[in-house]
Amino acid sequence: MAISNIRYGEGVTKEIGMDLQNLGARRVCLMTDKNLSKLPPVNAVLNSLAKYGINFQIYDNVRVEPTDQSFLDAIRFARKGEFDAYVAVGGGSVIDTCKAANLYAASPASEFLDYVNAPIGKGKPVTVPLKPLIAVPTTSGTGSETTGVAIFDFKELKVKTGIASRAIKPTLGIIDPLHTLSMPERIVANSGFDVLCHALESYTALPYNMRSPCPSNPINRPAYQGSNPVSDVWALHALRIVAKYLKRAIRNPEDREARANMHLASAFAGIGFGNAGVHLCHGMSYPISGLVKTYKPKDYNVDHSLVPHGLSVVLTSPAVFAFTAQIHPERHLEAAEILGADIRTARIKDAGFILADTLRKFLFDLNVDDGLAAIGYSKADIPALVKGTLPQERVTKLSPRPQTEEDLSALFEASMKLY
Amino acid sequence: MAISNIRYGEGVTKEIGMDLQNLGARRVCLMTDKNLSKLPPVNAVLNSLAKYGINFQIYDNVRVEPTDQSFLDAIRFARKGEFDAYVAVGGGSVIDTCKAANLYAASPASEFLDYVNAPIGKGKPVTVPLKPLIAVPTTSGTGSETTGVAIFDFKELKVKTGIASRAIKPTLGIIDPLHTLSMPERIVANSGFDVLCHALESYTALPYNMRSPCPSNPINRPAYQGSNPVSDVWALHALRIVAKYLKRAIRNPEDREARANMHLASAFAGIGFGNAGVHLCHGMSYPISGLVKTYKPKDYNVDHSLVPHGLSVVLTSPAVFAFTAQIHPERHLEAAEILGADIRTARIKDAGFILADTLRKFLFDLNVDDGLAAIGYSKADIPALVKGTLPQERVTKLSPRPQTEEDLSALFEASMKLY
Ligand SMILES: NC(=O)c1ccc[n+]([C@@H]2O[C@H](COP(=O)([O-])OP(=O)(O)OC[C@H]3O[C@@H](n4cnc5c(N)ncnc54)[C@H](O)[C@@H]3O)[C@@H](O)[C@H]2O)c1
Ligand SMILES: NC(=O)c1ccc[n+]([C@@H]2O[C@H](COP(=O)([O-])OP(=O)(O)OC[C@H]3O[C@@H](n4cnc5c(N)ncnc54)[C@H](O)[C@@H]3O)[C@@H](O)[C@H]2O)c1
Ligand SMILES: [Fe+2]
Ligand SMILES: [Fe+2]
Repeated sequence: MAISNIRYGEGVTKEIGMDLQNLGARRVCLMTDKNLSKLPPVNAVLNSLAKYGINFQIYDNVRVEPTDQSFLDAIRFARKGEFDAYVAVGGGSVIDTCKAANLYAASPASEFLDYVNAPIGKGKPVTVPLKPLIAVPTTSGTGSETTGVAIFDFKELKVKTGIASRAIKPTLGIIDPLHTLSMPERIVANSGFDVLCHALESYTALPYNMRSPCPSNPINRPAYQGSNPVSDVWALHALRIVAKYLKRAIRNPEDREARANMHLASAFAGIGFGNAGVHLCHGMSYPISGLVKTYKPKDYNVDHSLVPHGLSVVLTSPAVFAFTAQIHPERHLEAAEILGADIRTARIKDAGFILADTLRKFLFDLNVDDGLAAIGYSKADIPALVKGTLPQERVTKLSPRPQTEEDLSALFEASMKLY
Repeated sequence: MAISNIRYGEGVTKEIGMDLQNLGARRVCLMTDKNLSKLPPVNAVLNSLAKYGINFQIYDNVRVEPTDQSFLDAIRFARKGEFDAYVAVGGGSVIDTCKAANLYAASPASEFLDYVNAPIGKGKPVTVPLKPLIAVPTTSGTGSETTGVAIFDFKELKVKTGIASRAIKPTLGIIDPLHTLSMPERIVANSGFDVLCHALESYTALPYNMRSPCPSNPINRPAYQGSNPVSDVWALHALRIVAKYLKRAIRNPEDREARANMHLASAFAGIGFGNAGVHLCHGMSYPISGLVKTYKPKDYNVDHSLVPHGLSVVLTSPAVFAFTAQIHPERHLEAAEILGADIRTARIKDAGFILADTLRKFLFDLNVDDGLAAIGYSKADIPALVKGTLPQERVTKLSPRPQTEEDLSALFEASMKLY
């Protein structure tokens, strides 16, 4: 398994101009979103580019929770710009958009569907060389700075899907906790839930040696290879940090220790799930986001309705882990203990319920919306939610327990109300 | 920081022929040592090469604990062979030799000293492209499959030194625990001590943000950057595995679980120290190995006297950690606890003694030679040992506590007898 380069430290962003010089970059594309373009993280990057005389163009039209159309807009910009390096400053939305722009600019003859995951797209392997991409995350959530994944909302099909290839993994991730200080409460919370689910899902994913089919030629194996001894280390470590620091990071924007630790945990969990994969919370989240009606989350400075990614994954987590705990109950119990459950008298066969209860309590304490119903869904939506989950095989098949359509329906139903 | 690719699993060696095909290799150099060339690990590789019709030449003249001369012999072989890929099957001696052969074959005009660490060599940065190298470790010790380091004994100067560059890091490490089953007891023990010291030294190394000078341009920063939040994860995880499995792996060659875990721990600790660095145990070990008199360790099937690397690092470890614990005593105490010490009533100012005692007990239980005196050194050798340590600045300057020549003398003296 391959793991990206990261640089960590308060203020390390100021070196980015030098990094670009070292790369010999002469035309840099700086991507961000309209909200961030006025905030300190982008400012820090601009200062460094100026100091080292780096020639660049800004694209700040990234859509929060990107769509095929918003990816295409960024791709057009990148194709026209003939850039020799990319810098993405933002959350997963920005970093993912920049990965797609870099990929399609390097492959000008490709159709958009060529690299999109099968069965929705053609899932072609990437064989063209990409330009270097430096990712500067400003949320503590996706770990996109360490992964070869770019996610978008396919509007026509009303479902989220993505592009997955080691080739689009950033060349360098700059983990500078100073950037987390401007995040409002709900963005810290939702992106933190993404870390929580990356850690829980990759730790409980189907083990790497039970995955099938296992292509005999290593070159054909997917980036998501199932849980394994290396990803386990990252997942557990990230989970411990989430347990210790997420609440503090949400509640107190001045708690630099907590915010810095969550920023690292995001990258750690990213390295874990980038190798192991995620499963049902993520598979089911894609239609939850894709079918959004009118929900407008607090603290998101955007003009369209959206279900933030971290919220869309965490709302089903109690139901999902109650369902998957049949397989590897001991890992589910261990996770519950890390998250604060007292398991001294617990019975192993209750592992799923214990983890589910622990998660519900965790979310309740953090004022999370009470289930899918609270963000606008009702029973009548379940068939569409299930239909949107079915094509997400790339992740759902990593669930330790196989699921039927009825199982998925039941999981959505159980997630309508949490408390 | 960058982390190598690894593939883990019983039997995964059988895929190596396919890996070489995927790399388009047409002339492969297979390196090993004379002892291993008759053992199952090399056999497994040969079978796979045959199955996939890979054209190769064998070099089995690697010296256990390599020297400048033995490196040069392998380099001559590599330069003549015009290989397009390398496979190293063996312990650190083989993998390190293969790294050097690959480097100098790719740089035919270079003098040997060009890439050797300063101040002994010129420490030039590597700018030539190397051929892919697949490392198949057969000991559970050096983690060389994950590092950009190659160590040898500079005979003329009677001191060990090395080559350090990200460029020589293997393309892929194949961690196949089946290979550990043929290891005799003392090789498991000594290579395991290397893992123990990699973990302890990288966890206690000078923190990355206290290192000086810190070159302002990231490209000039050394691979060894001091302890940091990422290397800490690997170091602690490796230490926990050592605490749980090393004794079992040594005592029972049939204990596959223990041997497999130590094989992974070796790679984990390698990733940790490959990013953070090691310090005094390693810095002082180089003259301990380099000045060897007549010591011939049990279980090493070789015709020259040698102090195995793992033994040369671990014998000074009680003295070293008693000395360094002034700085970060809490980390020393935590390490002692992981290794089995009861620290409930411990005082933080005794952290160094507690860790030292724990290590002494650990070594005593495993029948380790009673200090430097037991492997042939006496007080009269101390000035030469100190002199051999002084040029090892690359690592000794990562000690959390700076040392004078008198300090080094005292550390060697305290390591003469352990029990
Ligand atoms: N590539 C991957 O591996 C991966 C993994 C998980 C999720 N994702 C995707 O990433 C996207 C979600 O990304 P995200 O959760 O990082 O959020 P985001 O990028 O969608 O940003 C959310 C909001 O936070 C604002 N924001 C970001 N950083 C800020 C800061 N420091 N201060 C103030 N405001 C800030 C943004 O402007 C935006 O309004 C989704 O599309 C999701 O599917 C990708
Ligand atoms: N490159 C690095 O990062 C790094 C780190 C630490 C040490 N080192 C160096 O590595 C060398 C030591 O390597 P090592 O400890 O792995 O041992 P080694 O390679 O020197 O081998 C020791 C002995 O074990 C035998 N052996 C190895 N595997 C066997 C197996 N599976 N079954 C039976 N016998 C087996 C060998 O034939 C040899 O006789 C030293 O030169 C040391 O300085 C390098
Ligand atoms: Fe996610
Ligand atoms: Fe070592």
